[in-house]
Amino acid sequence: MKTDEKLAALRRMMAAHQIAAIVVPSADPHQSEYVTGHWQARAWLTGFTGSAGVAVVTRTRAVLWTDFRYWLQAGIQIQGSEFELFKSGEKDVPDFHRWIFDHLGPKNTVAIDGRILSRTQEKTYRQLWDIRQIRLRTDLDLVKDLWQDRPPMPMSTAWEFDVQYAGQSRVEKIENIRKAMAQAGADCHVMTALEDIAWTFNLRGSDAPNNPVNIAFALFTQSSVRLFIHPDKVTKDLASGLANDGVTLAGYTDIDTALGQMPDSACMLLDPDMTSACLASAINPACRVVEKPSPAARLKAVKNDIQIRHLRDTAVKDGIAVICFLHWLSEQEPDDSLTEISAAEKLFELRNAQPGFVENSFDPIMAFGAHSALCHYSATPQTDVRLDNTGLFLTDSGGNYLTGTTDITRTVCLGTPSLQQIKDYTLVLKGHIAVAGACFPEGTRGFQIDTLARQFLWAQGMNFGHGTGHGVGFFLCVHEGPARISPHPVDAALEKGMLMTDEPGVYREGEYGIRLENMVLVTDSRQTEFGRFLEFENMTWCHFERDLIDTSLLTEAEIAWINQYHRQVYDRISPYLPSRIAAWLQTRTALLD
Amino acid sequence: MKTDEKLAALRRMMAAHQIAAIVVPSADPHQSEYVTGHWQARAWLTGFTGSAGVAVVTRTRAVLWTDFRYWLQAGIQIQGSEFELFKSGEKDVPDFHRWIFDHLGPKNTVAIDGRILSRTQEKTYRQLWDIRQIRLRTDLDLVKDLWQDRPPMPMSTAWEFDVQYAGQSRVEKIENIRKAMAQAGADCHVMTALEDIAWTFNLRGSDAPNNPVNIAFALFTQSSVRLFIHPDKVTKDLASGLANDGVTLAGYTDIDTALGQMPDSACMLLDPDMTSACLASAINPACRVVEKPSPAARLKAVKNDIQIRHLRDTAVKDGIAVICFLHWLSEQEPDDSLTEISAAEKLFELRNAQPGFVENSFDPIMAFGAHSALCHYSATPQTDVRLDNTGLFLTDSGGNYLTGTTDITRTVCLGTPSLQQIKDYTLVLKGHIAVAGACFPEGTRGFQIDTLARQFLWAQGMNFGHGTGHGVGFFLCVHEGPARISPHPVDAALEKGMLMTDEPGVYREGEYGIRLENMVLVTDSRQTEFGRFLEFENMTWCHFERDLIDTSLLTEAEIAWINQYHRQVYDRISPYLPSRIAAWLQTRTALLD
Repeated sequence: MKTDEKLAALRRMMAAHQIAAIVVPSADPHQSEYVTGHWQARAWLTGFTGSAGVAVVTRTRAVLWTDFRYWLQAGIQIQGSEFELFKSGEKDVPDFHRWIFDHLGPKNTVAIDGRILSRTQEKTYRQLWDIRQIRLRTDLDLVKDLWQDRPPMPMSTAWEFDVQYAGQSRVEKIENIRKAMAQAGADCHVMTALEDIAWTFNLRGSDAPNNPVNIAFALFTQSSVRLFIHPDKVTKDLASGLANDGVTLAGYTDIDTALGQMPDSACMLLDPDMTSACLASAINPACRVVEKPSPAARLKAVKNDIQIRHLRDTAVKDGIAVICFLHWLSEQEPDDSLTEISAAEKLFELRNAQPGFVENSFDPIMAFGAHSALCHYSATPQTDVRLDNTGLFLTDSGGNYLTGTTDITRTVCLGTPSLQQIKDYTLVLKGHIAVAGACFPEGTRGFQIDTLARQFLWAQGMNFGHGTGHGVGFFLCVHEGPARISPHPVDAALEKGMLMTDEPGVYREGEYGIRLENMVLVTDSRQTEFGRFLEFENMTWCHFERDLIDTSLLTEAEIAWINQYHRQVYDRISPYLPSRIAAWLQTRTALLD
Repeated sequence: MKTDEKLAALRRMMAAHQIAAIVVPSADPHQSEYVTGHWQARAWLTGFTGSAGVAVVTRTRAVLWTDFRYWLQAGIQIQGSEFELFKSGEKDVPDFHRWIFDHLGPKNTVAIDGRILSRTQEKTYRQLWDIRQIRLRTDLDLVKDLWQDRPPMPMSTAWEFDVQYAGQSRVEKIENIRKAMAQAGADCHVMTALEDIAWTFNLRGSDAPNNPVNIAFALFTQSSVRLFIHPDKVTKDLASGLANDGVTLAGYTDIDTALGQMPDSACMLLDPDMTSACLASAINPACRVVEKPSPAARLKAVKNDIQIRHLRDTAVKDGIAVICFLHWLSEQEPDDSLTEISAAEKLFELRNAQPGFVENSFDPIMAFGAHSALCHYSATPQTDVRLDNTGLFLTDSGGNYLTGTTDITRTVCLGTPSLQQIKDYTLVLKGHIAVAGACFPEGTRGFQIDTLARQFLWAQGMNFGHGTGHGVGFFLCVHEGPARISPHPVDAALEKGMLMTDEPGVYREGEYGIRLENMVLVTDSRQTEFGRFLEFENMTWCHFERDLIDTSLLTEAEIAWINQYHRQVYDRISPYLPSRIAAWLQTRTALLD
């Protein structure tokens, strides 16, 4: 079917159900970052294949919202169809729910598939739309019946993630989750986030790209744990291992029935951001509900000592791969064969040679010249460009190793940098150092740290449009909550053992972008009469670009930080490098003058 | 009645109503900062007269919560009674609502007077207590009937605040509030905050200490405005002036009936933080309700050009008073007559000599030696101490002028400062300068700025326990929302025209405290390819203590900031000083070496 045929068919069904507008978001029943094809209804309907966007279809309009990363791609992909493109984030472009609020008359009904709509989203939209008496139905999935060639559910086999890597048994983890339930006054808990389930049960799989997870739900009481997963994904051995730890198995779709059968006396803990409207409404209505962030999210964010030891080794392995990549890059004669995509293939090859490497932790960003100004650019055969010696090259990538997940960004100059490029790089580096070297009181939240990375840019009338840092999983998702370092006021403290990124940047549209990213581990600093203070331990070892640093803009303390960091990079990585590359690294890490 | 007699009588009434616990907070029906005697039920019941605290009485326990400012005073005042003191903010001391959650069995009922309980508080407590099936009743005020000698309602006369000071007519303000109502999708609005009412109607009074407000409510529709205020408070002239502007008058207590009579089709905008549970429940149940921050709060926070011109003059008037005070202080021979309280009287006398001065904007903090470490210390005849030449003296005070409200803190050393005092003062000053000199993008919220004031203290394992700054009213409340500069994530941007304070500090228990406070006005900085940027214009003119500054801890830019600020202080203030004091100021503002 063509897009407009799909729209016509959809509108016939809307009319039959008296639906004035249907919203098709980009989400799955687990609010995952990567939505597998089975739930790509928005892509199917609109033809736009980007990762983020919302489609709204009314009797007379068909609108697609997506953010600046995808404006170009979406414009091309919806061309010739009835869909209009709304550029999210542009001035005077309303959110889709505000647009519905403004355009739909009272007593009209909006339909959104409640299995992929979070409880929080449902509440937000209802609260706004109620003002105009616009109704919301979450019990209809009109797209389902039209979607002929819908991809099947991913069916990868689940496997046990050895405790020698996980550092904690699933039995202990389940105990801690039960403690958190009790603390919240609840006696049962439904777990929906795939990364929380993978962490809690020490399971891994490959049901999603880059994230080694299995599609499942889990239901906890103080005496039982049920894992809802397709039976074909669980081997006999794994099933008996789980049974030994008190985990019983049930079919993936049995979760609704199980929630309906909870005793009237039960008090259910659920995370409204991660639990779908349908799942929440499937709970026995007699039960009381406590809405709180998923306990597993916080527990898994705090890495244990065994994980931390692995992370220190992983930092060296990943450092070797990235430094060899940068050296390889420095030796390339500009020719047609070297492009953004071929560079990505080279870096993958180098990481893949490291022990314990499993896959990229996300689609690498290899952005040359003006592409580097698009802070989430991902090269496609259509956009791929040759790396000549005329600009900045931004490379943001990471690996998923059995011993941890990595995320690093470096920006190098192919050719001769401009004075403005050197100044911008130095200002970004100053912000990076301000965060990496920060000491802060226990209880500090990421939004309090974020400004440290921006202050030097602000002073010059500059800024960057993304957060300074995010949590990182352990052989799991490269983006992990609850803590973030961003202007967004997430009320989650930076706790000892949390692994974060430190990645300020600056982006000049049409010219170039610069981003400098290391991972940092929250660790103890000192105890004073003012309380307990924390600081960061560096978890990424790769030099910065001396040719892009203007030392006259740095304080003595900043120069000392760089020199000391560079010495550590050399000391930790050079032993594992071919002597030719080690010699090169020595020149890149020599004291700044 | 003695406290324990009151408790016995209260418990008889609790039994009669099957109430397991009663909560008596410190609040009035307008969620005012200053609660007048008429609503001091908690003080009446407990005997504790401090401004902040909550009393909870169960069948078997009587507990008073209050924060560190009042631990000493509360301990003395409840001595000999059944009340136990719970120190809010101390480790392992639960909030009162959590304590009730933990101590009351299911199916029990808690009573809180719904007229002084905000809608937000009501929701929060219900949500928590529902988990344990603890019920909340807000329709009972058991204290009322026991409280014989209850002070009457304040009855000051309201007066028109001239538009030459207000800078905007009440008609314009009412129009803007209606625009905000429409924008929120509402067609009516109940206004409850006394400062919002004073601002909107250009009225002032003296129903509360330090805050020139009138006790009233207001109800807006797109076609009518009703002001609910005791008729004796409004003169004929004022009444007709209000009538001419379309404002009709009603009795203070008629608000409930009026809300009940709203048409079913109405959609009511209310601020859940400032509207009481009773008022919210008095609204015709058929109406829809939009819960949003009070539109007036944001509108009044943004000062208009006429107000800003007045504020610049007020900064000079207040600077003269404070500088004369500091000079007077520097000339005092330590003797028994000079104490914290007599110093406060002197400063009042100096401010009172300035044209347009009406009253202190808050009870001044005059704290000598160890008292200065208590960041909300207020001297009483019992605590008053002599100012000898052995310590730091912290003075935090402000005036309410017809031309604006001021708030300034300086810390001076009587005698010879220690090296630690000099280092602490310099670190606090560095933080003060980092905020005062900040440039930040439009949309930045206070919690993003707050860290700039703390970074130098954090680096030394130090911190302070209060916010860096708050909004300031215009001849209104010295503490004004919605914006704050604090670690608390208040989602209100710092907008051009907002008047804030910049007041980092450091407090060493038992030794001394340091706080340095100026007022700053948010103003335009520049427009770049990265967007619009804002900065602060200084609104306080008084020198810092050169004897307490260690220039070796300052950057060249910081030294230049101080020298330039000091030159401006001298240029702006000295023309109005007696030559003897001007000469002294010249020495205090000479270039740092």
